[in-house]
Amino acid sequence: MEIQIVFTSNVPKYIEIYKQMKQLILKQHLKTHTKIPTKRQLAQQLNISIHTVQTAYEQLLSEGYIYAIERKGYFVSKIDFDWHGNEVHEVETPKKTEKPPLINFHNGQVDAIQFPFRIWQRLYKNHLVATSVPNANWQGEVELRQEIAYYLQQARAINCKANQIFIFSGTQQQLQSLCTFLHGVRVGIEHPGFSRAYTLFQQLKLPTALVPLDSEGCTVPTEPINLLYATPAHQYPLGQIMSINRRLQLLQWAKSTNSYIIEDDYDSEFRYKGAPIPPLAHLDGLDRVIYFGTFSKTLLPSIRVSYMVLPTHLLSDFEAFNQLTKSTVSRIDQLVIADFMKSGEYAKHIAKMRTLYRAKRKCLIDAITQHFGPSFSVLGDDAGLHVVLSLPPHLTEEIAIRKAASVGVAVDAISQCFQLEKPKNQILIGYGTPTIEEIQKGVQLLASVYCD
Amino acid sequence: MEIQIVFTSNVPKYIEIYKQMKQLILKQHLKTHTKIPTKRQLAQQLNISIHTVQTAYEQLLSEGYIYAIERKGYFVSKIDFDWHGNEVHEVETPKKTEKPPLINFHNGQVDAIQFPFRIWQRLYKNHLVATSVPNANWQGEVELRQEIAYYLQQARAINCKANQIFIFSGTQQQLQSLCTFLHGVRVGIEHPGFSRAYTLFQQLKLPTALVPLDSEGCTVPTEPINLLYATPAHQYPLGQIMSINRRLQLLQWAKSTNSYIIEDDYDSEFRYKGAPIPPLAHLDGLDRVIYFGTFSKTLLPSIRVSYMVLPTHLLSDFEAFNQLTKSTVSRIDQLVIADFMKSGEYAKHIAKMRTLYRAKRKCLIDAITQHFGPSFSVLGDDAGLHVVLSLPPHLTEEIAIRKAASVGVAVDAISQCFQLEKPKNQILIGYGTPTIEEIQKGVQLLASVYCD
Repeated sequence: MEIQIVFTSNVPKYIEIYKQMKQLILKQHLKTHTKIPTKRQLAQQLNISIHTVQTAYEQLLSEGYIYAIERKGYFVSKIDFDWHGNEVHEVETPKKTEKPPLINFHNGQVDAIQFPFRIWQRLYKNHLVATSVPNANWQGEVELRQEIAYYLQQARAINCKANQIFIFSGTQQQLQSLCTFLHGVRVGIEHPGFSRAYTLFQQLKLPTALVPLDSEGCTVPTEPINLLYATPAHQYPLGQIMSINRRLQLLQWAKSTNSYIIEDDYDSEFRYKGAPIPPLAHLDGLDRVIYFGTFSKTLLPSIRVSYMVLPTHLLSDFEAFNQLTKSTVSRIDQLVIADFMKSGEYAKHIAKMRTLYRAKRKCLIDAITQHFGPSFSVLGDDAGLHVVLSLPPHLTEEIAIRKAASVGVAVDAISQCFQLEKPKNQILIGYGTPTIEEIQKGVQLLASVYCD
Repeated sequence: MEIQIVFTSNVPKYIEIYKQMKQLILKQHLKTHTKIPTKRQLAQQLNISIHTVQTAYEQLLSEGYIYAIERKGYFVSKIDFDWHGNEVHEVETPKKTEKPPLINFHNGQVDAIQFPFRIWQRLYKNHLVATSVPNANWQGEVELRQEIAYYLQQARAINCKANQIFIFSGTQQQLQSLCTFLHGVRVGIEHPGFSRAYTLFQQLKLPTALVPLDSEGCTVPTEPINLLYATPAHQYPLGQIMSINRRLQLLQWAKSTNSYIIEDDYDSEFRYKGAPIPPLAHLDGLDRVIYFGTFSKTLLPSIRVSYMVLPTHLLSDFEAFNQLTKSTVSRIDQLVIADFMKSGEYAKHIAKMRTLYRAKRKCLIDAITQHFGPSFSVLGDDAGLHVVLSLPPHLTEEIAIRKAASVGVAVDAISQCFQLEKPKNQILIGYGTPTIEEIQKGVQLLASVYCD
């Protein structure tokens, strides 16, 4: 028996064979218990490899359209249900994503060229073995939590144990886990603030107080909230560092109102000068403070690993609440990060990147000073991976972004961080990705369209 | 100047140097603006490498405890705030996890030895490059969604486009995302059912109807719910395949009540005989059906990648709702899976594993028949990676698990899948991990303690 299979160019051949034979069976053009060609016969007839036919037959077999009799061949199954000859449609080809900008000042990105890919690859290979494949511990791998505890002690003077640390796949996800656990929580967020945190509160329909900033950082909440989200080490988006006095005031507030403060320490590794100000989690000994950390800035944004450190008095309830929760983080990635930290590569990489980002920030500020007039100014302390650029009145955020794009420079909006009145003349400039030369070139290009 | 540093055995040397110098500075034993030893001097004094001292000094520098003057050396910073000499504590060494069982009949696991690690490693290496490190598209990488759309067409006759597919890091997380989006939804779940789904509904405080099973599968809901969670291809945990009539009845119910059905197709790839029954998502053309798929069973449980297919009429609202949501799935992993599918390795691996799991299932059933008496029986159709073993009255779940453990065999409880009356004499046996020989040995060991 000859079977007609028509190949088109876009679809793998085994899929065509599978699809068309299925249609023949469903439409009863191939009758029940008919013997179909052997794999070799069909391969010869269609001038393709036996392997391709085998893949198609395996699929038909597994779905029960055909059955096999040993040493006799393949036969058409009895199909009771009429699938109405449902046609398999073409899959739409997705649009190509837009081409990358000439100069990338997008916020929230890192200098990926500097990442020790070879070391990472070696560690990944070590852990890509059969023993690493069962599900991860829901709380996160103990090897990683142990390394994070060491790191927080030495880098942030935060005393915690591995059992206080919970591994998640990003700040939003851990914020969601926390808010779900603290059912009915009344949240507050510094304003302006991290728009992705605000969005999460909105998605969860939590009444959300906007807590204003002043020159010392997030002010003490006056509304009756019991969970405050703040970024003391480097306010997002404005970039200021919270004063020690304000830190102590906020802790006093949390203690007296039995509230919690989320200290999101999202880029504290990159602090370029000045005496250290202890994190809230240090000052308070992790009593009213819930500490958020991430590897997005220090490793790679695309790996999606973050962590939350809980006060010990919450542990047993949080564990009970999550008794049947599964981890959302690749176990292999967790073990790789643990090794990366243990071997000293993490500390080394951060030190290297801190030096580089410090130089990039200086270059950016110098270039802005050089090319822009006094109607432009830079906001934010000497830290992190972004600055806020304040623009003269004729340059609105929208115009500034469009003009930048017209010369191939990508800059970011800041208005989504404001829920009340939005700043008219500010943009975010991230300096994680571009090189020193690109930063200089980028600022020149911006000046060419901003200072006309 | 000599600085005394005491090394203990458990802590890396650079951390000791950092910690102890910080204490000396905070307690003002090292006075403001004092010059501290050069890296070389301290390395010689302590008989350690300069690199170790450098790591410690970099940390002190970055936190502002010391400052550097070019060609002069390092000096103690002025510290305004008294940290009260807060001591850095020892990190508790976590308990070792219990040793693995002799025979692993745990449910939800795969035969990892068979996984093509070398191919995966090669694909991972290809994608571990600077261009893969920015954040993933929140919906998931288009390359992966495209491959999943092809796969669903050919393997499940589900016609969908890449823009209907959303990538998540596990069933619970995508269920949470869906329920948060469908705010105020009234859910139902087949009973008994997947305990992790039920738990998620409880965590979200959603009123949850328990919809009973009968011999054809999940019955038509009678309570006023508008989202039903079901597992038609292989009921979890009891293992039956939903009849075509019941499928059509459920779709009729969904249409007439404007409800949605989540079709969790968690292990449909492993179906070992019989004519195919079309998925709800095929029968209904993805109108009232939301389809859940996962790579946990077909690839590795530890990679944490799953997907949800939405009806087109929900897309624009779901996208708007998640405008500021970030992906929780490693971009590199997504690109690796896409390549794995595109190259045909995925279809090949599934075909190979289907043959292997079919043989394991047969071996398990044969061994049970051979070694156990008529008071034992196996529930569940010819599919998946687990069976339910029904035990005689004297063997309760608890006793059965304990007796199995006493001879080194791990089996799982089923009672957490029941919210009302729990079965007294049933256990879950997963056959994903053990070899054919281990399955035979495991059943013999179980017989030795169950049939006395």
